[in-house]
Amino acid sequence: MDKGERFSPLYTDYYELAMAQGYFKAGKAEKEACFDYFYRKLPFGNGYALFAGLKDLLNALDQYIFAEEELEYLRSLGMDQDFIKHLESFEFRGSIDAPKEGELIFPNEPVIRIRGTMLETQLIETLVLNIINFQSLIATKASRMRFVAGDRQIIDFGLRRAQGMGGIMASRAAIIGGADATSNVYSAKKYNIKPAGTMAHSWIESFEDELTAFSVFAQNYPENSILLVDTYDTLRSGVPNAITVAKEMKSRGQQLAGIRLDSGDLAYLSKQARKMLDDHHFYDVKIVASNQLDEYLIKSLLEQGAPIDGFGVGTNLVVGRKDAALDGVYKLTMFDGKPKLKISENVEKLLLPGVKKVLRYYDEEGFFAGDAVMLAEEEDPERIHHPFLTSYYNFNRKKFEPLLQQVVKNGHILPSEDNPYEIAKYANERLSMLRNEHKRFENPHIYKIGISEKLFSLRQELVDSLKPNNTV
Amino acid sequence: MDKGERFSPLYTDYYELAMAQGYFKAGKAEKEACFDYFYRKLPFGNGYALFAGLKDLLNALDQYIFAEEELEYLRSLGMDQDFIKHLESFEFRGSIDAPKEGELIFPNEPVIRIRGTMLETQLIETLVLNIINFQSLIATKASRMRFVAGDRQIIDFGLRRAQGMGGIMASRAAIIGGADATSNVYSAKKYNIKPAGTMAHSWIESFEDELTAFSVFAQNYPENSILLVDTYDTLRSGVPNAITVAKEMKSRGQQLAGIRLDSGDLAYLSKQARKMLDDHHFYDVKIVASNQLDEYLIKSLLEQGAPIDGFGVGTNLVVGRKDAALDGVYKLTMFDGKPKLKISENVEKLLLPGVKKVLRYYDEEGFFAGDAVMLAEEEDPERIHHPFLTSYYNFNRKKFEPLLQQVVKNGHILPSEDNPYEIAKYANERLSMLRNEHKRFENPHIYKIGISEKLFSLRQELVDSLKPNNTV
Repeated sequence: MDKGERFSPLYTDYYELAMAQGYFKAGKAEKEACFDYFYRKLPFGNGYALFAGLKDLLNALDQYIFAEEELEYLRSLGMDQDFIKHLESFEFRGSIDAPKEGELIFPNEPVIRIRGTMLETQLIETLVLNIINFQSLIATKASRMRFVAGDRQIIDFGLRRAQGMGGIMASRAAIIGGADATSNVYSAKKYNIKPAGTMAHSWIESFEDELTAFSVFAQNYPENSILLVDTYDTLRSGVPNAITVAKEMKSRGQQLAGIRLDSGDLAYLSKQARKMLDDHHFYDVKIVASNQLDEYLIKSLLEQGAPIDGFGVGTNLVVGRKDAALDGVYKLTMFDGKPKLKISENVEKLLLPGVKKVLRYYDEEGFFAGDAVMLAEEEDPERIHHPFLTSYYNFNRKKFEPLLQQVVKNGHILPSEDNPYEIAKYANERLSMLRNEHKRFENPHIYKIGISEKLFSLRQELVDSLKPNNTV
Repeated sequence: MDKGERFSPLYTDYYELAMAQGYFKAGKAEKEACFDYFYRKLPFGNGYALFAGLKDLLNALDQYIFAEEELEYLRSLGMDQDFIKHLESFEFRGSIDAPKEGELIFPNEPVIRIRGTMLETQLIETLVLNIINFQSLIATKASRMRFVAGDRQIIDFGLRRAQGMGGIMASRAAIIGGADATSNVYSAKKYNIKPAGTMAHSWIESFEDELTAFSVFAQNYPENSILLVDTYDTLRSGVPNAITVAKEMKSRGQQLAGIRLDSGDLAYLSKQARKMLDDHHFYDVKIVASNQLDEYLIKSLLEQGAPIDGFGVGTNLVVGRKDAALDGVYKLTMFDGKPKLKISENVEKLLLPGVKKVLRYYDEEGFFAGDAVMLAEEEDPERIHHPFLTSYYNFNRKKFEPLLQQVVKNGHILPSEDNPYEIAKYANERLSMLRNEHKRFENPHIYKIGISEKLFSLRQELVDSLKPNNTV
């Protein structure tokens, strides 16, 4: 966690190293290979996922070198001396294509395409999966909260319940998905995010009484005091005391920023508190709510007319409940010039072989109509197949664009957006081009992903040639 | 992530720093305080939780100093110059009591007791919560898998789906809960855990055919080859080819370690594969299964008589599905010599005020009977109350022991167990003293947590004195 922190190349699964050594000894290490990163199942029953984590991945690849003590550890595991010697000067020299961070991504389409030598493309598998799976999960979760919260504040309060140091990247991904600020100071500094926070119950309890606690806090933070009102009794103590302090501040020419409700029935309490504040003409004092919130509770509160101006969301955001993981995988699609395919026991898990690209089509009204996967050398193909059935999609062909762009060229990291708020803006733009039917929580409309005729045929040929007895 | 990695003191919620500054300016920073760490809800509907993460927490506290660039960041946020000056020489000088790592811990009892100045005990809140909540969650999850897997191998394969760098501590906690090894090389090195791994489909696909891929791998790793048999067709290609390689190895005086099933119906495939291996007298070739396993699937596979010798578990273990978080909290119990209490809207969320200790009672057969929370100065109290009702528990009073021991004394970290396997042994010992009724997955028997008469009265007095109109 120190500054200039890098991802150690040992931050990987052991089998990557074991295979890398095997490729090295079998003379295969320098052969050309291509892997695809993609995911299979939409998280949270959502209609889309947001692509996040790219910048952290690129920064990690930029520093992907084996330190002496790391090589020493591999020696202690009995790894081959020549292989370790080879790792001494190892650098990632491959090329990577990916969408912009914040892009909408859908199941089974290639999201990241990694080309290079077999050794280097295999070694980075775990790193790619670890960073992209997690940040995409959390960015997607945050975007669901943003969808229901409208323009109300969303603040990430999750570090205390985050999965250990997973909290660092969680706060970044939360911003990409639409959160406004984070309580996580480390991530605020690292990623240039706005830090935010109010007070805990311990602050109140350390004073003789609640009013004094509020009053002292307000004197300390005249610009931005949000008073926690539920330590003793929200409506009979907390809110009245907050109103007293708001008056004190007013007499000093200051303004109380807000109050925070952290327990009890937030719909009821927020309405009562709003009324009490308004009765004293404190129309501008905001109400912030927290306590195990998620997108469903936020939706429900707002449907009940709860006058809440901001939501502090913690656990459910930063661990991405309930799914808690995106099922992204990293699969070999080409080796030594030949398209590759793993044949699964389940037909719907069939992979897409070969070096590919993705086009995104627009409909007549400027919304996204669907994506098509095809071989890299194909132009806009004549017919777009359903991925498994014999039917076709009729995308309007007037407007389309490639989804993946080169982000690493022969080991050289190309510039990409670093600021999470700028990435969030891009995500928001892209979401505005996705019809709301894809964004609803219950049975969202399924976004179409097709494959070109050529890719469909290539896959079938490979299945036929690889499968014993030609059955899938 | 570099070696000697430390947790930055900025790895915290902004409000800890805001409150710390407030205490400092209000002359309260040096007042004595006591906080309790405890959790409220058992994860996974389990009957117990395992305490984990202590050693990482202690190491973090040992290096808890503000670096210049961190202070510079706080300056950039407009924090007070005198306060920042104070942080320059800040060190944690408080005292901490905790159970041994691997201990069984139950809801609402104090697990960690932190005493020191208000400033230092407040500042470390988020750090305590972040590390202990997560590692305890994962250790508990792993112990459920160990409970159903008996003495079969459990290997953590989770890094690729872990919550970013959460994967680092997840692998340690998995071992504490009963996993045998990890695929995560970084954690293997950092925590002295056994690394493990086999091969991916990409290895198979990079060869002309499956048999050659197996054969080359076996030549590279004669000691420990586990062949992945589902790339093309498990029973018609994978297992027959593995048997061919097993014969080749036998002719060289070597032995194939095992095969791995990673898709399809694992119960059916493992039985068929076992039969095929046995038909060729390869009784010692193990069968390892993986693919979205959790404790329920492991239980089901074994109930079906699946002859599986080892389980590779990933996502469900390292993210602690479905809960994905333990709800641990950190609450002020004493300030400046006075017991403190936050009064919640929900009576069952009432806290336990004062500086306390916990005794664990044994029954006549040597099993754990229940725990009792009491004030620190109490001896074995006369009567143990139900925490809310007016009834009492009748613990056998012949054998009991204190649950918490001092682990930090005035800032000095006392020695504690570092080796995750030794901690796992302790957890296993303690679990053997917990009746199996507490370990079953469906409605586990509830472990009794009582409170002393004195504590019961103290809490009631405080409620009466603090609550407006004397109502809870």
